[in-house]
Amino acid sequence: MAHIRLPEGIPGILGLMASSPETAKPLNALAEVLLRGPNSLSAADREMIATYVSSQNDCYFCQHAHGAVAAYRLNGDELLVDSVKANFEVAAVSEKLKALLAIAGKVQRGGKQVTNEDIARARHQGATDKEIHDTVLIAAAFCMYNRYVDGLATWAPTDPDLYRENGRRLADEGYVQSTAHLPAAQKECA
Amino acid sequence: MAHIRLPEGIPGILGLMASSPETAKPLNALAEVLLRGPNSLSAADREMIATYVSSQNDCYFCQHAHGAVAAYRLNGDELLVDSVKANFEVAAVSEKLKALLAIAGKVQRGGKQVTNEDIARARHQGATDKEIHDTVLIAAAFCMYNRYVDGLATWAPTDPDLYRENGRRLADEGYVQSTAHLPAAQKECA
Repeated sequence: MAHIRLPEGIPGILGLMASSPETAKPLNALAEVLLRGPNSLSAADREMIATYVSSQNDCYFCQHAHGAVAAYRLNGDELLVDSVKANFEVAAVSEKLKALLAIAGKVQRGGKQVTNEDIARARHQGATDKEIHDTVLIAAAFCMYNRYVDGLATWAPTDPDLYRENGRRLADEGYVQSTAHLPAAQKECA
Repeated sequence: MAHIRLPEGIPGILGLMASSPETAKPLNALAEVLLRGPNSLSAADREMIATYVSSQNDCYFCQHAHGAVAAYRLNGDELLVDSVKANFEVAAVSEKLKALLAIAGKVQRGGKQVTNEDIARARHQGATDKEIHDTVLIAAAFCMYNRYVDGLATWAPTDPDLYRENGRRLADEGYVQSTAHLPAAQKECA
């Protein structure tokens, strides 16, 4: 049971956002620019960074919600997402993404964990200042979203099809409207 | 030296925001609603939660920037801010704020650290659902801001008067315009 009263039947961060629209607005705006805004990093790579950090933070809802977006953007390759979570260094992703995931993993443990060597590795693989900046901020942002979701003990469904459907919707329609599809009746019981 | 090229002479998150206005906008909007929006928790209490979490994350810039806002809002009582950072359980703050700081401290370590007992303690001291929600989200948000500031190795000045002046400005003028006072020449060297 969640630590506070939330609308019934709306999982994870969606229930929090339905009950707190004034904070949902900047939270969704941040996700939209970080994960779907114009960027030399693909949206799939950015969702993979979000998924990896969420798995390191052991946040069930976020790692499956964003893992589903990443998989949808990779033609449904859920095994690749799982392999990144298990050990990205041997996963079938680019050396540049591996270097960025290494930075993201350090940020997850704490900002000061990022070393000059981590940055040099990413630059050696062609990462730009903006790509490094965005990797750090995506990782930092998911340290927030994950704590928000789990710190209030929200409900996370386990049916993979629910995450697949939500992932398709997030990829196609974006984050700003992420609670727009929820039934009005569910919202009203907040 | 910062891990990426930033405008010279602009400390902490301000340099990052000057160089990345598209992410600065939702980051500032979130701080504004969490720390200055209409709330039954005083702005001083909310800044104290932000300061405490930033100190637990060992983020020099954020703990001094927000500690200065908290102190300004408490008639300059910097010793009270220091005592909360050192050990809030024996500090001269309300039992309710102590209970909320205990929740914030758990969130800093990880969302799943928050227990039913932590929530019951806060409710016993009169905390509402919204106050518990906002405490968790403030703590989670500063786990993001702190990692953003330190993950990119930004510069933090040590002169307390700079933080006092910035704290007064943030308290009086808010977060949305937090980079508006920066000299144009500094912004242009990004």
